[in-house]
Amino acid sequence: MKNFNELLEELKGYEFSNLYHDDFHHTWDKSQDEVQAIFAVADALRRLREENISTRIFDSGLAISLFRDNSTRTRFSFSSAANLLGLEIQDLDEGKSQVAHGETVKETANMISFMADVIGIRDDMYIGKGHQYMKDVAQYVQEGYDAGTLEQRPTIVNLQCDVDHPTQSMSDMLHVINHFGGVENLKGKKVAMTWAYSPSYGKPLSVPQGIAGLFTRFGMEVALAHPEGYEIMPEVEEIAQKNAEQYGGKFTKTNSMEEAFKDADIVYPKSWAPFKAMEERTELYGNGDFDGIDALEEKLLEQNKQHTDWACTEELMKLTKEGKALYMHCLPADITGVSCETGEVDESVFYRYIDPLYLEASYKPYIIAAMIFMQKVKDPVKTLQRLKDEAKPRVGDL
Amino acid sequence: MKNFNELLEELKGYEFSNLYHDDFHHTWDKSQDEVQAIFAVADALRRLREENISTRIFDSGLAISLFRDNSTRTRFSFSSAANLLGLEIQDLDEGKSQVAHGETVKETANMISFMADVIGIRDDMYIGKGHQYMKDVAQYVQEGYDAGTLEQRPTIVNLQCDVDHPTQSMSDMLHVINHFGGVENLKGKKVAMTWAYSPSYGKPLSVPQGIAGLFTRFGMEVALAHPEGYEIMPEVEEIAQKNAEQYGGKFTKTNSMEEAFKDADIVYPKSWAPFKAMEERTELYGNGDFDGIDALEEKLLEQNKQHTDWACTEELMKLTKEGKALYMHCLPADITGVSCETGEVDESVFYRYIDPLYLEASYKPYIIAAMIFMQKVKDPVKTLQRLKDEAKPRVGDL
Amino acid sequence: MKNFNELLEELKGYEFSNLYHDDFHHTWDKSQDEVQAIFAVADALRRLREENISTRIFDSGLAISLFRDNSTRTRFSFSSAANLLGLEIQDLDEGKSQVAHGETVKETANMISFMADVIGIRDDMYIGKGHQYMKDVAQYVQEGYDAGTLEQRPTIVNLQCDVDHPTQSMSDMLHVINHFGGVENLKGKKVAMTWAYSPSYGKPLSVPQGIAGLFTRFGMEVALAHPEGYEIMPEVEEIAQKNAEQYGGKFTKTNSMEEAFKDADIVYPKSWAPFKAMEERTELYGNGDFDGIDALEEKLLEQNKQHTDWACTEELMKLTKEGKALYMHCLPADITGVSCETGEVDESVFYRYIDPLYLEASYKPYIIAAMIFMQKVKDPVKTLQRLKDEAKPRVGDL
Repeated sequence: MKNFNELLEELKGYEFSNLYHDDFHHTWDKSQDEVQAIFAVADALRRLREENISTRIFDSGLAISLFRDNSTRTRFSFSSAANLLGLEIQDLDEGKSQVAHGETVKETANMISFMADVIGIRDDMYIGKGHQYMKDVAQYVQEGYDAGTLEQRPTIVNLQCDVDHPTQSMSDMLHVINHFGGVENLKGKKVAMTWAYSPSYGKPLSVPQGIAGLFTRFGMEVALAHPEGYEIMPEVEEIAQKNAEQYGGKFTKTNSMEEAFKDADIVYPKSWAPFKAMEERTELYGNGDFDGIDALEEKLLEQNKQHTDWACTEELMKLTKEGKALYMHCLPADITGVSCETGEVDESVFYRYIDPLYLEASYKPYIIAAMIFMQKVKDPVKTLQRLKDEAKPRVGDL
Repeated sequence: MKNFNELLEELKGYEFSNLYHDDFHHTWDKSQDEVQAIFAVADALRRLREENISTRIFDSGLAISLFRDNSTRTRFSFSSAANLLGLEIQDLDEGKSQVAHGETVKETANMISFMADVIGIRDDMYIGKGHQYMKDVAQYVQEGYDAGTLEQRPTIVNLQCDVDHPTQSMSDMLHVINHFGGVENLKGKKVAMTWAYSPSYGKPLSVPQGIAGLFTRFGMEVALAHPEGYEIMPEVEEIAQKNAEQYGGKFTKTNSMEEAFKDADIVYPKSWAPFKAMEERTELYGNGDFDGIDALEEKLLEQNKQHTDWACTEELMKLTKEGKALYMHCLPADITGVSCETGEVDESVFYRYIDPLYLEASYKPYIIAAMIFMQKVKDPVKTLQRLKDEAKPRVGDL
Repeated sequence: MKNFNELLEELKGYEFSNLYHDDFHHTWDKSQDEVQAIFAVADALRRLREENISTRIFDSGLAISLFRDNSTRTRFSFSSAANLLGLEIQDLDEGKSQVAHGETVKETANMISFMADVIGIRDDMYIGKGHQYMKDVAQYVQEGYDAGTLEQRPTIVNLQCDVDHPTQSMSDMLHVINHFGGVENLKGKKVAMTWAYSPSYGKPLSVPQGIAGLFTRFGMEVALAHPEGYEIMPEVEEIAQKNAEQYGGKFTKTNSMEEAFKDADIVYPKSWAPFKAMEERTELYGNGDFDGIDALEEKLLEQNKQHTDWACTEELMKLTKEGKALYMHCLPADITGVSCETGEVDESVFYRYIDPLYLEASYKPYIIAAMIFMQKVKDPVKTLQRLKDEAKPRVGDL
C-alpha cells in the first residue's frame, strides 16, 4: 500500500477539477482520473488518520443524512466520514418533520440546507425513483444557491439509489486495488458478480449494477451470472459493455454460476431482485395496489426458491483460480446455517474471509470522506499537504 | 444590506446588557434596543459566514432541543445555529427518555442540563401550557444553577409556544428590514396579517400573534384581518395596540381580507385556529375528553369551510400597493391546487414569491444564533471583532 | 473539595496504567488505585470546566451509544461526557439499523467502529445477558483491531448491565467522598442500601449490586436490607464480603429496613426485582413464553404489594445518625403522593434532599468522561497539565 507521499504524487497526476462543487450520483458520470483521484484521497486520509493527524477541514457545518431505508454500515460510514472532516451529522427524519404536511421536495431541500455542506441520501426502494429524487434535490438546492438563499451549495452524495451504489462499489474497488497491490495488477483478472439465493426478497439491484458499471473500467473481466429472469437494468449492462471495450476488459453474461466462478480471481455472490419485477413493484406501489405487492412478493419468493442451488459453496469455491478467489460481499450476507437455513454462502467460506470482508467495509468511510473532500476543497493536493505539515493530533493524548 | 463594520457600529449604539444570561420567551419582553441588537448580530454572523470566517465561540457544549410537535425548518434552524456557534445538538426525545416514568419536569430539566448551554423548546399545542412549560424549565435550571449542581445556567430559546413564535417573527422582521433597505424605510408601511383558509385544523396562533406583537414596533400599520370568531389572544392585541402608540404606528382590525390587503406593502395570509376554540381544546385535553376533541375538530373544520374565500388570490394581490406587496409566509403553506384543493394561496402567487419566501426562512438560523450569542457572550462587540480579526476559516479548503 | 493542583498531585500517587486501552465493565475488575484515579480525574475535569478551560482531547472521533432500555440521565451523561472530550455522539438505533436482518453482533460491532473511540452500552434487561453482550462486543472489536480493519480499538463503557452499574455507583461514591470531605473520613460510616416498595416492576438489580460491590471498598459498613425473597446475585454478595474484609469494612444483611437505617450515615432506599425472578424472566423470554412473562409480572406485583411498608418515611429517617443521614437515589424515584400513590420515599424526605440528589447525579458526566480519558490518554497527568497550561477557553466569550 502506498504511503502518504506516494499517494500525493499519484494524485498530482490526475485531472479532477470537475469534482469540485459537483454531486456524486453514479460512478460512470466520472472520468477515470476522477475515480482514481478519489481512491488516492481516500487512502491518503486513511494514512493521516493512522498517524493520528487530524483531517478536519470544517470548523463547523452540517452533513445532512436522509435515509429512506434501514441502514447500519452506510449510515455509520457517512457519519464517520462527516466527523472525520469536521461536519456534524443531522438526520432528516421524515417522520419527525413536516414533509408529510404538504411540503414539497424543493421546500424541504432548501429548508434543511441553510448550513449544510453535504446531503447524503439513500433511496433505493423503487426503480425510477431514487436517482430521480437525488437529481431533484440537487437541482432545488442549486436554485436556492443561485437565488442567494443558501450561502453554500450543499453537494449530494448518493448513499445508494435504485441504479448505483457508488460508495459501496468504490469501497469494493479500493479493497481490490490494495488487495492485489495496485491498479496495474488488475489487468486480465476475472470477477464473478453472481446472483445467489436468499430467503428474503427484493434486495436492491444497485450493488450488482454498481460492480458491473465500475469494475469493467480496470481491464478486468466482469462475469455477470444469474438465473434466467434475474436480469439487471439494460442501461447498466450497456455501460459495462462500453467500459470493457474502452478499458481493455471484458463483460460477459451467463446463466451458470459455475461458469462465472471458473478461474475467477474474485467472487461476489449476492441476492438481488429481478429488474422487471422491481419495475412492476414500483408501478403497483404508485397505484397503491398493496394486495398486488403482496401477491408479487409471494410470486418472487416462490421463484427464488427454484434457485437455492445458487450458493457460494466450498465446492464452487474450488472452481476459482487455485481455489482461492477473493470472496466479497457488501454485507450483511445470508449465511447458510447462521442467519438462515439456506442462503447465499456457506458458513465455512464466509468465516474464512471474515477479515478481508471487514477490511472491504472499512474503506467506505474513507471513500465517502474523499468524495466530500473533492467536492469541497479547491486544491486537494495543497490541502492534504497542509494537513500533513500541520500534523494536528486527532487524539491529543499527551 | 450593511457590511460587517457597519453592523458592528450599529451594535455599539444599542443597550443590550440585559440579554446576557437571560432567556428569550416573547419579543415584547425585550426592549427595542435589544431586538435591534439581535438583528445586527444575526446579520453580522451572516456576513462572517459569507466570508468563510468561523463564528465558533464554543469549543464544546450542548444545545438541547425539545420538540413537542413536528418540525423541519425550526429544528434544522436550531441545529444550524448551534453548530454555527460550536455547540453539539442533543435531542431530548421524550419517548426514549424516562420522562414517562414519573420524572418531574424539574428533574428532567436538571438531568439534561449538566453541560447544556442552551435549551430550545417547541411547545405550541395547548393554550396556557407552552409558555408556562418554558418558564418552568427556566426556573428549574436556575434553581439547579443556584444550588451548584449545574456549572452553567442553560438559557431558554422559545422555538414556538402557545403565545409567541419569536424566532419566526424576528426572522420575518429582519427579512422585511433588509428587503426595504433598513428600519428607517418602514415608517408608514402597511402589513396585512390575515387569516386564510386551510383544509387542516388547529394551526397555532403564535405566528399571527408574533407578527402583531413585533411588527407594530417599527412604525408600521399592522392590519389584522380574520373572519368573525377567529380572534387572537386579547393580551396580544393589547400589546400590539400599545406598541403602535409607543412607536408611532397603527394596529387595526377588520373582518375583511380585502380591506387589509388594500394598499398593503406586505401581506402575510395564513390559517390559524380561533383562540377560544384552542382554549376549549386545552380544557378537553386536560379532562381526557377525546370524544369532545374529535367533535370540536369536526365543528372547526366545518366552520373553516365557510371561509374558503379567504385566500391570497391574484385578484386580491392586485389590491395591494401597486399590486406588488411582499408576500410572506412561515411555511409550509397550503397552496391551492398543489398541496390541497383549496388553500391559503394561489399557486401563481406563491411561486412568484418563492425566492423571497426562502430568503425569509434563511434568516432563522442566524436569528437563533444571535439570540444564543447575546445570551452567552459578555461583550458581543469585542467578540465579533475578535472573530473577524482572527478570521479562522470555516472551511479550510486551501 | 480539592483544587486542580491537589487533584493532580493525588493522581500522581496512583498506579493506573492498566486502565489505558482497557474496557470498563465492573468496578470490582479495577484496583483501588484505578478507582481512585478515576475519581481524581473526574474532579479535575470538573475543576477545569468550572474555570472555562477546554478539556477537548479529541479533534474528531465518534462515541457510539447503544441503549437497549430507555434512559434520560445516563444517555445525557454519556453525551455530555463525549462532548466534553471532543467526541461526537452517534446513536446505534437498533430499530433503524439492519441488526434485525441477520447481522451478527460481531458484524455490527465492527461496522459501527471504524472511527469509534468508545462504545457506551446499556443492556440491563436480562440476567446473564447484558454483561455478556458487552464482553462479546469488546472481543469482536479487539478482533477487528487485531485484523487491521479498525484503526483504533474502541473501548467499552458499561452504562448499566445486568450485574453492575459502574457509572452510577462511581458517581454515587464520588458524591459521598466530597460530601464527607474525603475518602479518609469514610472509615466506619454506615450505608443502608435497602429495598423499597414501588408500584412498578422489574427494576434492575445493578444499582444495589453496584453499591454493594463498590461502597464496601472504603472501610464503610454496607447494610443490605430487603424483604425475604428479594436477594441480589450471590456472586456480588461474595465480592462485597471480600471487599469488606480486604478494606476493613463490613457487609451485613438483614430483612429489616429499620435495622439497616439504625445509625446509618447514608441511606439508599430503592426498589429492585428479586434476582431469582429476573432469572426466571430471562428464561421465559428465551423461550418466547410471553404469557409466562405476563403471569410472572402479575405475581411479582402481588408480591411487591406485601411490602408497601418498605418506604423511606420521615419516621424511618429519624432512626438514622442524628436523624440526618444523607439520602441517596439514582433517580427517578417513586415518590409517595407525587409520582405514585405509595412509593419508595416520602415527599417531604425526597424534597429536603433535592439539592444533594441532583448534585449526586451531576457527577455522572464527569465520571464517564474520566473513564474515557483514562482509556484513551497515555499520560493523564501530563495531558491534564497541558490542558490547564494551554487554558483554551471552552466558551470564547470575549
